[in-house]
Amino acid sequence: MARVLTPQAEDFPRWYQDVIAKAELADNGPVRGTMVIRPYGYAIWERMQAEMDARIKAAGAQNAYFPLFIPESYFRREAEHVEGFSPELAVVTHAGGKELEEPVVVRPTSETVVGEFMAKWIQSYRDLPLLLNQWANVVRWELRPRIFLRTSEFLWQEGHTAHATMDDARAYALRILHAAYEDLMVSVLAIPVLVGRKTARERFAGAVNTLCCEAMTRDGKALQMGTTHELGQNFARAFDIAYSSAEGQRELAWTTSWGTSTRMVGGLIMVHGDDDGLRVPPVLAPIQVVVMAVKPEVADAAHRIAAQLGAWVSNLNRWFRQ
Amino acid sequence: MARVLTPQAEDFPRWYQDVIAKAELADNGPVRGTMVIRPYGYAIWERMQAEMDARIKAAGAQNAYFPLFIPESYFRREAEHVEGFSPELAVVTHAGGKELEEPVVVRPTSETVVGEFMAKWIQSYRDLPLLLNQWANVVRWELRPRIFLRTSEFLWQEGHTAHATMDDARAYALRILHAAYEDLMVSVLAIPVLVGRKTARERFAGAVNTLCCEAMTRDGKALQMGTTHELGQNFARAFDIAYSSAEGQRELAWTTSWGTSTRMVGGLIMVHGDDDGLRVPPVLAPIQVVVMAVKPEVADAAHRIAAQLGAWVSNLNRWFRQ
Repeated sequence: MARVLTPQAEDFPRWYQDVIAKAELADNGPVRGTMVIRPYGYAIWERMQAEMDARIKAAGAQNAYFPLFIPESYFRREAEHVEGFSPELAVVTHAGGKELEEPVVVRPTSETVVGEFMAKWIQSYRDLPLLLNQWANVVRWELRPRIFLRTSEFLWQEGHTAHATMDDARAYALRILHAAYEDLMVSVLAIPVLVGRKTARERFAGAVNTLCCEAMTRDGKALQMGTTHELGQNFARAFDIAYSSAEGQRELAWTTSWGTSTRMVGGLIMVHGDDDGLRVPPVLAPIQVVVMAVKPEVADAAHRIAAQLGAWVSNLNRWFRQ
Repeated sequence: MARVLTPQAEDFPRWYQDVIAKAELADNGPVRGTMVIRPYGYAIWERMQAEMDARIKAAGAQNAYFPLFIPESYFRREAEHVEGFSPELAVVTHAGGKELEEPVVVRPTSETVVGEFMAKWIQSYRDLPLLLNQWANVVRWELRPRIFLRTSEFLWQEGHTAHATMDDARAYALRILHAAYEDLMVSVLAIPVLVGRKTARERFAGAVNTLCCEAMTRDGKALQMGTTHELGQNFARAFDIAYSSAEGQRELAWTTSWGTSTRMVGGLIMVHGDDDGLRVPPVLAPIQVVVMAVKPEVADAAHRIAAQLGAWVSNLNRWFRQ
């Protein structure tokens, strides 16, 4: 048989590219670092999304949508945040045929614009906790892009919450980490993850503590699959997210943010795939069974067998998940 | 009772703004023409999305995802398209701390980039029809923005298909118009729509025929709720979307595109709302029943009544839709 994939042991990154191309999961986009997610790859992502969305809603957060464009000035309000993200920003300077008075940034993440609106929406302790999530695209200019793992544009969910106390914020960041992220990765992606705390150097820009789920890929490397951040009062201070307490005192809120992205698709490929190609856990697989009819005369029988096997696999899935 | 809404008869646009603010559906974003969709508004959109997605899939299209950023040069390949969209484009000139060699456009629609990839993916008549859809944000710089109706950034689905013949393309554009768009608007949004053909002047830039669903708002104006376009061979010629026929001839494909957006939320408000406020058809309503307990002692009883009424409305919905 002709070799269609580079063996993993020979060149793992090359194997990864080969699988993505052969399985028609994604292509490189025309602008450096962007990607086109093809139907088969998108169907896997869509199933992850549905499972994640259900877990996020079960944790009490509501979906909302914040704008793609953020005034540049918002980024400068939190010192570590601007320092961390400045090298990765894409900036719109012209729109509607004119030069803009203030350039706008294409969001690399939405803490700043969400902070601005939390400050408007939160008045009293009764408005807390405020638990928001959005499904969106974000842009972080990448010098060494890799499809799904590091792309200049990627799809993700980003959660943003505000709480009355540090303990509440911490507890919620932990809850999302375990009940949404770890649970999804283990029970849906079938990926064992190490859950823990990032070092100060690896923290999100502006966070006081970053927690993460790390997977191990088949070449023995760690891959960050999702993170939750305690932001302390850094963004509350920068955007004046404050509430009046039950005692009538004005207090700064405590915020968190957390995200998982299309990178999970890359993780899935690198953890489960082997020299024969892609392997997708049944819950996420858009196609459960393929029966190949070598002779056209048996095509009908093959269709029947495939349908029966597919139903059997679906039943098995349901049974395993009970 | 204090007046909370401007009466429709007094100032309809003002009534519209008032309802959106009071019902907490959306806010203006910090960058001109952008919007923040708040949880209650987003929950309505999410329900529309799910219903639309099911109809699009039932019509055989698969979801995919194409990049936000498109090389400026792509737009110049189809003469009418570039002329139609140039005044509305937002352009990224700087990214990753440097000036870009070629500026990139933030997609106002994706015909060009989809065309580029269709040309790669389509080889033979066996690859046709190719039926794609994506859920995405797009940007068209607006001089006179109105929340949900005309915003610089909006959320939408855009379908893109390629067919072997003009008749196939025409039939598919009609199928989406009726089986997805009209059906959703009538049976889910509860909005009667007039379905028909746009004049040449109102056609999509680059289309040979544009079909639409138009609703009438309560101030007696027509509102375009969704459009499907026959693109003829205009984009196939510009991007070389060609296939080899069963007879081995090289032929240009025929393409279509079609879209509906968050504008439907605006239509819903303007068709159903009245001087007492927002009215949402039960299938789309995130909240079915609210029972207000005036005295705290009866709060428990009120909760029970609300739960029972909610269940009753849900059953009624299911029954009506069978």
